Amino acid sequence: MEITVIGLGKMGMSLVKQLNDKEILVKGYDINPVIKETYQHRLFNFAPNIEILFKERKREIVFLVLPAGKITDEIIKQILQLVINGSIIVDFSNSKFKDSMKRHSLSKKHSVRYYDCGISGGVKGARFGACMMMGGEEELDTELEDVLIKLCVPNGFMYHAQPGAGHYLKMVHNGIEYGMMQSIAEGFDLLFTQNKYQFEICDVANLWNHGSIIESFLIQKLYDELKSEVTLEKYKGEVSSSGEALWTIEEAMENEVPVPVIALSLMKRNSTLDKKNYSGKVLSAMRFQFGGHSEFD
Amino acid sequence: MEITVIGLGKMGMSLVKQLNDKEILVKGYDINPVIKETYQHRLFNFAPNIEILFKERKREIVFLVLPAGKITDEIIKQILQLVINGSIIVDFSNSKFKDSMKRHSLSKKHSVRYYDCGISGGVKGARFGACMMMGGEEELDTELEDVLIKLCVPNGFMYHAQPGAGHYLKMVHNGIEYGMMQSIAEGFDLLFTQNKYQFEICDVANLWNHGSIIESFLIQKLYDELKSEVTLEKYKGEVSSSGEALWTIEEAMENEVPVPVIALSLMKRNSTLDKKNYSGKVLSAMRFQFGGHSEFD
Repeated sequence: MEITVIGLGKMGMSLVKQLNDKEILVKGYDINPVIKETYQHRLFNFAPNIEILFKERKREIVFLVLPAGKITDEIIKQILQLVINGSIIVDFSNSKFKDSMKRHSLSKKHSVRYYDCGISGGVKGARFGACMMMGGEEELDTELEDVLIKLCVPNGFMYHAQPGAGHYLKMVHNGIEYGMMQSIAEGFDLLFTQNKYQFEICDVANLWNHGSIIESFLIQKLYDELKSEVTLEKYKGEVSSSGEALWTIEEAMENEVPVPVIALSLMKRNSTLDKKNYSGKVLSAMRFQFGGHSEFD
Repeated sequence: MEITVIGLGKMGMSLVKQLNDKEILVKGYDINPVIKETYQHRLFNFAPNIEILFKERKREIVFLVLPAGKITDEIIKQILQLVINGSIIVDFSNSKFKDSMKRHSLSKKHSVRYYDCGISGGVKGARFGACMMMGGEEELDTELEDVLIKLCVPNGFMYHAQPGAGHYLKMVHNGIEYGMMQSIAEGFDLLFTQNKYQFEICDVANLWNHGSIIESFLIQKLYDELKSEVTLEKYKGEVSSSGEALWTIEEAMENEVPVPVIALSLMKRNSTLDKKNYSGKVLSAMRFQFGGHSEFD
């Protein structure tokens, strides 16, 4: 069997390498042709464009590893024109589950099966064993299932036969991730800022990942970073967010489920990006008006 | 060598059993004499009262596994009257680090070494391998260190030679724990409440603990519970808090470190206990006054 991978960035290329490791033939395409130079393998073929990728007119299994949104939509439309009936698209983007539901319908009209697949575990997961939550219609193609299970850690694969289910789970997963990360960040901020104790903060992170209640993948990753530089000076502290936490909050609102900590975690990220700091200026303005406090620039 | 354990509740008795497993002689005392009937071991002796516990007038190593606060203070005062110079007290309570600092000074006056030791990992950790963060003065007694390392998972023991350091770390640890738990709780609330998808929620918890970014001890424990009953009906949903999150927030305020998610997580717990729900009534009262909405009991 052969897998076609479109999108050879950090995640896509890691999946390609893992597929090759597991003796699976891959043909790949990326808009950036330089990628071709970075990886050679007897089981990997790079195609210069999408048309050549699908020139054989055989049943294709396509892994899409692209940014969510417009790009993914455009490539899916292209693929649907090029592949034969019965082909399969697995969308690994961090798409909104409602977009994935639309892609299911659209693909069905072209007699192509579309699967939405949330992938977690980061680049290392994609390279050596990921966690996948996958949605689709009816039964999963067993040949495909075998390949995906091979790409996951043991018990790290779930298929739920409802369109959008995979990206729905990934959305909630990332919402939870935001809150967990923010809580860890606040605790370590306190440890770093206080001056009562001279803790080796990286040792503390390592300790807490050995037998404690907060033992987690996230604290492990933080430790990996703290041990090289505890001040984290290379980081600006300006933290982006992709859509999943926002969608989790929107979905929670729609269902009247209170998710204050997830919402606050997203707001905290947004506030790190807020260069105009208008709310701070508003506070200062009022303090100046009633108390004469002069917090001027 | 022999360890004296005072407080034979779930944590204390688990430590006793682990000590005995590791061929360490233990004498124990608990205010509840029934405890005596629940555990017999060739390396364990139960004392009917504290005076008998210390009747040999030898150098003692005492593990205190008691609720934080008054009880711990009272027992420490009693012990200081009964043990000879050079004895050691290890306080495993969830005490405020400032209280532990006072106990350091008091014990020093009696020529007794006091160590504050935060212990994490729950009852199972105490039974089979915990995580310990310990504070004290100067070097740690090596014989004691050997015993404690035996009670921890590999790399799960840290000693920091400043009084109160152990309970300070445990405080921050628990603050982080509150935020992580709340975030997980919100995500699973959404999964449980929404009706777009028929997820097996326990399977999702299990999946997320295999290779995902949110893989953690906490999700593992949640899974252990969900697999027996996904509705969690036996729980009231009223969630207590011990002091650590509050102290984390106080300490953060003192250091002007923003910890909004940890603070909100504590408030969320407090709101689950708020039976009078006066803030809800206040909202209804205003809605009635301006809009005629009749949300009466």
